[in-house]
Amino acid sequence: MIMSKETLAKSIREIPDFPIPGILFYDVTTLFKDPARLQELSDTLYEMYKDKGITKVVGIESRGFIMGPILATRLGAGFIPIRKPGKLPAETIEESYDKEYGKDTIQIHKDALNENDVVLLHDDLLATGGTMEAACKLVQKMNPKRIHVNFIIELKELHGKDLFNKDVDVQSVLSL
Amino acid sequence: MIMSKETLAKSIREIPDFPIPGILFYDVTTLFKDPARLQELSDTLYEMYKDKGITKVVGIESRGFIMGPILATRLGAGFIPIRKPGKLPAETIEESYDKEYGKDTIQIHKDALNENDVVLLHDDLLATGGTMEAACKLVQKMNPKRIHVNFIIELKELHGKDLFNKDVDVQSVLSL
Repeated sequence: MIMSKETLAKSIREIPDFPIPGILFYDVTTLFKDPARLQELSDTLYEMYKDKGITKVVGIESRGFIMGPILATRLGAGFIPIRKPGKLPAETIEESYDKEYGKDTIQIHKDALNENDVVLLHDDLLATGGTMEAACKLVQKMNPKRIHVNFIIELKELHGKDLFNKDVDVQSVLSL
Repeated sequence: MIMSKETLAKSIREIPDFPIPGILFYDVTTLFKDPARLQELSDTLYEMYKDKGITKVVGIESRGFIMGPILATRLGAGFIPIRKPGKLPAETIEESYDKEYGKDTIQIHKDALNENDVVLLHDDLLATGGTMEAACKLVQKMNPKRIHVNFIIELKELHGKDLFNKDVDVQSVLSL
């Protein structure tokens, strides 16, 4: 069953001042713990991507590991993790990006994707978009046929979408 | 389709000396990236737990977040994350445990489970079992009806299973 934006918004818990004062955190664990809501979100994401020929779903550690694998099995695709440095055991390529304080780096296995893949990159939330932009650059190095980028929630005031090239299809289920 | 132990063993990549010299690391990312194998592992886990009345699947960050959510949607259960300190935004309870060097702590949301739940705790690999033992203690504090513990792979020479009480059902798909 497709999830309405109202139901999705009601299923998320808002936590003020997390992780730091002044930030309103959108907690999706309240949605994931409810079997009916989890199923509806899975159905909704499946409907968005079922006709796109997705061959690999790439999830960003850790919160992108929750809906990413569900979506991979629903779409008949494989699942690929993007992780923090030192976590992936085989040969990796990496990308660094600026955060508010200092830099962060993410890695993907070198043999994870190839030029025949249609990739769906997934994370739970689009805020300023730095992590997903870096993830997109990582995936682009492997020359897939096409890249789709998906979030459960997008914070539209932060304009994270502006970071992505027009040839990348960026969608979210709920825009707040 | 149920996955044979031979197919599962062949789908995993062995990486010597990771993360430290002398450790043989079993890399399941090669299985996850193959759509047919991912589907078979999902089917196999579903068959193991479909008649157990599972209401919540609890996954341990980060590798338990991959099959855990898939299994939750297959079983019609909710998904609950156990995470490192400072990652879960609402009120948590925590448990610390000894590692080779120093201590580690894991947390779960206080409102994640209750006494009506039948819990399936999932992680990818059972080695010495310290993390899963701590996860089990965390879940037990919420008095669920029953706890099942599942791993994709169990390293039997390390006797991790001996840590668990007899009233906890501990199973793995492949014992190496």
